[in-house]
Amino acid sequence: MASTLLSARDLRFLIYEWLDAEALTRRPLYADHSRETLDGALELAERVATDHFAPHNKTNDANEPRFDGERVHVIPEVKKALEVYAETGLAVAGMPESVGGAQMPHLITSACGAYFQAANLGTSAYTSLTAGNARLLLAHGSPEQVRTWVPPMIEGRFTGTMCLSEPQAGSSLADITTRAEDAGDGTYRLFGNKMWISGGDHELTENIVHLVLAKIPGGPPGVKGISLFIVPKYLVDADGSVGERNDVVPAGLNHKMGYRGTVNALLNFGEGRHTPGGSPGAVGYLVGEPHQGLAQMFHMMDGARIGVGAGAMAVGYTGYLKSLAYARERLQGRPLGGKDPERPQVPIIEHTDVRRMLLAQKSYVEGALALVLYCARLVDELASTEDEQERRRARLLLDVLTPVAKSWPSQWCLEANSLAIQIHGGYGYTREYDVEQHYRDNRLNAIHEGTHGIQALDLLGRKAVQEGGARLTLLVETAGATVERARALGGAEAEYADLLDASLRRMSEVAALAWAGGDPAVALANATPYLEAVGHVVVAWMWLEQLVTAHGKEDADGETFYTGKRAAASYFFRHELPRTGPQFDLVASCDRTVLDVPADAL
Amino acid sequence: MASTLLSARDLRFLIYEWLDAEALTRRPLYADHSRETLDGALELAERVATDHFAPHNKTNDANEPRFDGERVHVIPEVKKALEVYAETGLAVAGMPESVGGAQMPHLITSACGAYFQAANLGTSAYTSLTAGNARLLLAHGSPEQVRTWVPPMIEGRFTGTMCLSEPQAGSSLADITTRAEDAGDGTYRLFGNKMWISGGDHELTENIVHLVLAKIPGGPPGVKGISLFIVPKYLVDADGSVGERNDVVPAGLNHKMGYRGTVNALLNFGEGRHTPGGSPGAVGYLVGEPHQGLAQMFHMMDGARIGVGAGAMAVGYTGYLKSLAYARERLQGRPLGGKDPERPQVPIIEHTDVRRMLLAQKSYVEGALALVLYCARLVDELASTEDEQERRRARLLLDVLTPVAKSWPSQWCLEANSLAIQIHGGYGYTREYDVEQHYRDNRLNAIHEGTHGIQALDLLGRKAVQEGGARLTLLVETAGATVERARALGGAEAEYADLLDASLRRMSEVAALAWAGGDPAVALANATPYLEAVGHVVVAWMWLEQLVTAHGKEDADGETFYTGKRAAASYFFRHELPRTGPQFDLVASCDRTVLDVPADAL
Repeated sequence: MASTLLSARDLRFLIYEWLDAEALTRRPLYADHSRETLDGALELAERVATDHFAPHNKTNDANEPRFDGERVHVIPEVKKALEVYAETGLAVAGMPESVGGAQMPHLITSACGAYFQAANLGTSAYTSLTAGNARLLLAHGSPEQVRTWVPPMIEGRFTGTMCLSEPQAGSSLADITTRAEDAGDGTYRLFGNKMWISGGDHELTENIVHLVLAKIPGGPPGVKGISLFIVPKYLVDADGSVGERNDVVPAGLNHKMGYRGTVNALLNFGEGRHTPGGSPGAVGYLVGEPHQGLAQMFHMMDGARIGVGAGAMAVGYTGYLKSLAYARERLQGRPLGGKDPERPQVPIIEHTDVRRMLLAQKSYVEGALALVLYCARLVDELASTEDEQERRRARLLLDVLTPVAKSWPSQWCLEANSLAIQIHGGYGYTREYDVEQHYRDNRLNAIHEGTHGIQALDLLGRKAVQEGGARLTLLVETAGATVERARALGGAEAEYADLLDASLRRMSEVAALAWAGGDPAVALANATPYLEAVGHVVVAWMWLEQLVTAHGKEDADGETFYTGKRAAASYFFRHELPRTGPQFDLVASCDRTVLDVPADAL
Repeated sequence: MASTLLSARDLRFLIYEWLDAEALTRRPLYADHSRETLDGALELAERVATDHFAPHNKTNDANEPRFDGERVHVIPEVKKALEVYAETGLAVAGMPESVGGAQMPHLITSACGAYFQAANLGTSAYTSLTAGNARLLLAHGSPEQVRTWVPPMIEGRFTGTMCLSEPQAGSSLADITTRAEDAGDGTYRLFGNKMWISGGDHELTENIVHLVLAKIPGGPPGVKGISLFIVPKYLVDADGSVGERNDVVPAGLNHKMGYRGTVNALLNFGEGRHTPGGSPGAVGYLVGEPHQGLAQMFHMMDGARIGVGAGAMAVGYTGYLKSLAYARERLQGRPLGGKDPERPQVPIIEHTDVRRMLLAQKSYVEGALALVLYCARLVDELASTEDEQERRRARLLLDVLTPVAKSWPSQWCLEANSLAIQIHGGYGYTREYDVEQHYRDNRLNAIHEGTHGIQALDLLGRKAVQEGGARLTLLVETAGATVERARALGGAEAEYADLLDASLRRMSEVAALAWAGGDPAVALANATPYLEAVGHVVVAWMWLEQLVTAHGKEDADGETFYTGKRAAASYFFRHELPRTGPQFDLVASCDRTVLDVPADAL
């Protein structure tokens, strides 16, 4: 039976036929790799995700982490899965040689990660948060900090978290009140409460490395006074062994609708439960310079945002494959015009509306996978090109695509999960099947790491206008090159190229119209419809790229891969892209309905 | 604190200012009623729903019904709530005098029912299923059947169910295999399994009256051979007292994502656990003539479908009110252009995107409430008018609006619940707050009592074309009259009247274009986008009706009701109605993408 996590055939198509991963292996940074090592990693990820992550996905959901007032208990399958994951070396694979990594392209490690997210979003969150944490320290930590904390994280002995939110400051980081007092010995002592900390406490690993945003008293107000600290659960001795307990303790767990496999904790820092070194406060180590915390954290955050999009995609993708398998097996009803009840029932995939729901899902999840991998490829470009112009292009494109790569899969792959439930009918609504959990798990993704609305402000308020709109212009140019290639091919490719071309123009023009009055309140009043419309345009571009890549390729006997790609592309261009028309019109009109409604009239 | 179930002010506006319930009380059927009795019922419903249904909504969810292999256990709060409900007399209120009812307009009993649905969808399902069951027997049962079963149901001593689906036949009723053998004594013996039976077993009441679809051997194949039977859990003695156990037993419960407060069972009929009267088979009593079961059941089903829409609306409505209350209280961030971190944080309702999410919810839930009440008013018209033409109009309009009233709230009030979560941020995703349960509960509504896709086929395949399209034509005419009234008012009313007018024309024209080729497969390939577009047009009409009703009315000091109505109407016309453009274009183009995609290319 084919895997119901991701389609390996689709990954091969995107990674090799489209994004030319083999070209990356000819660059110095990735020179140790070849098609063989990349394929090996992908196959290993699929196997370990299938055998060690997927089996306890439901168990995790039904037996969420439990806090006994002192310790957090997690089902044993999670620890076992993380141990096996560590043994695979996949966490180390993408890291630089300097810390023992294999310098594998991000394109491949992202695809590997997606297998784990599809198999078990809850358990895989520990690995992705830890990787993000390690990368942040590689970028901003001192050599000593890197030596102390990074190897145990990428080897799976420690996990990592990011501690931003506080009960009174979720999206509003200017208002955090956790304070870090200079201890005079090169360390700080932290006091405060952090909320929504994924992986915040557990006994899955020897230690937990918290990266914590806090304010050093006397610093500037608001976000300008935020610094970043390493605050381990256990202090580490000079020889690297785990030592005294630090004063960071769980105060409670959040009980969520989904995503239950990941511990989500309220953490207290410096409440006095422990007194490391005999003094009050949680011991913290400043990363880089004071007051640079927000910028440093955003180094991790941008990657985390694309990671959220990747998770949303992966959960959408597996839901699609499961509903596809169900639709092929489940017998129910008869075709239109052949309702004779004496004839046997047909598999529900024979019903047009079921095919519509499958094709919609396919267009969302494969479109989202393409987008996530395209972003990963840009990360590789940024890391590996020698050409300064290319680096700048990659950086700007990644900047403008990040809010889209975060928000679009969170919205549309959730919709895919809803359609997967719908295909299963009443069964899909029960906990006997997997799809209801996917739907619950996926609903978080529009909230964490910057809400949907915050992504919209980021796109229309910053990314679309900074540096004279350079990012949006570059996006239009880059997608415009795809339009030209598709036009040259004629046929459906040319037809859809025209549609994309018109949408790209409208996307630019509408951003200008929104800002024409110069009033941010008016410009941003409809930022969310703008974000959603841009998302559809970007994914339409991803579909045109796939069509161009598939051009002229015929399916081998018994295969239908390219036929399916063409059908899903057609679905996206005919059923989906037109949604953007009214959205762009609304933004262009600077509609003031939501801006002007008095709060007390709601 | 204002109720967070439904807005009593909105109900008064819709029921009295718009739908003129007082005019109904001047008709003979409703002559016992007055504004006072109607208000009394509404206030009673709000109070009992608040005090006895809402408090255990979460408890029900966290402690779902449990089957010990023999008996089904439900938390005691449910039984208590149903007892209090029975004492209120609300179940009897809408019934005819002939069975001791108070003949209250359906408009009012629907609104009362919505309070209970908003408070606790799970517990209220027992009451609405029982009412539907009683109404079906009133319409199709023999006088003796009515005497035996209806009074105990409306008095709350018995509950009722509808048993349609079987494990192999969910949406495909032609394939049911439960058989009913003539026992030769005027009764039948039933054998078979029924699936997804809400309220299928419990000990909340003395007895359960199952209405069961089954086939009498030798009858015609498919749906033409379906008959309807009363199959009680306990036989009833001649004096009406509950007697011997019948052979209908639970085989298991379904464990669902939401809607957990309602027992949902797999029932076995005639498996031999009991042998009533010493013979095998569950004793059943034929309702009406053999082979009329489907038509009879649809008498209940049409009402049940609008009831599903009402439930979806109610859950959406309470989610809206709760997120509104949260948005007024939760402090977070600062307005655009006033980001000084030294200033205090503002309530999140000050953020434009939060107002957008509130206004969207308001436009969905108040639009849905208007639609549900409009349908209830048509039921009253049908029941109370003396004019044959008016009866026909009411019946045809109700016919064409039923798939919309079922599907539109199921889709958009679920979306409202998603926005309610989003406004709560991370908190909304936790089980500490109510909104995540609303979202889970509401997701069922697009599935049960005819899936979303089945509603689409019903609309475009039947309701839009039967009798030369008379129903759609009548809908256009009726909404057209609203357009004319609104145009005469000028201003925003006239502006939106033009938009609705164009949409109504397009709605008709597109149905004709879809069917132009005469091939049902092509016509119905895009039935779902058609249903969704028509839903938006119908709700736009509901908003124009509300605008016209509000015209010239000024808010009293300290009130903002009409201002809010106007803002929500503007939102719907500017942000929502335009979505229908691309949907109608797609249907009009007879797009074949989903029709032509080969099943094996998915």
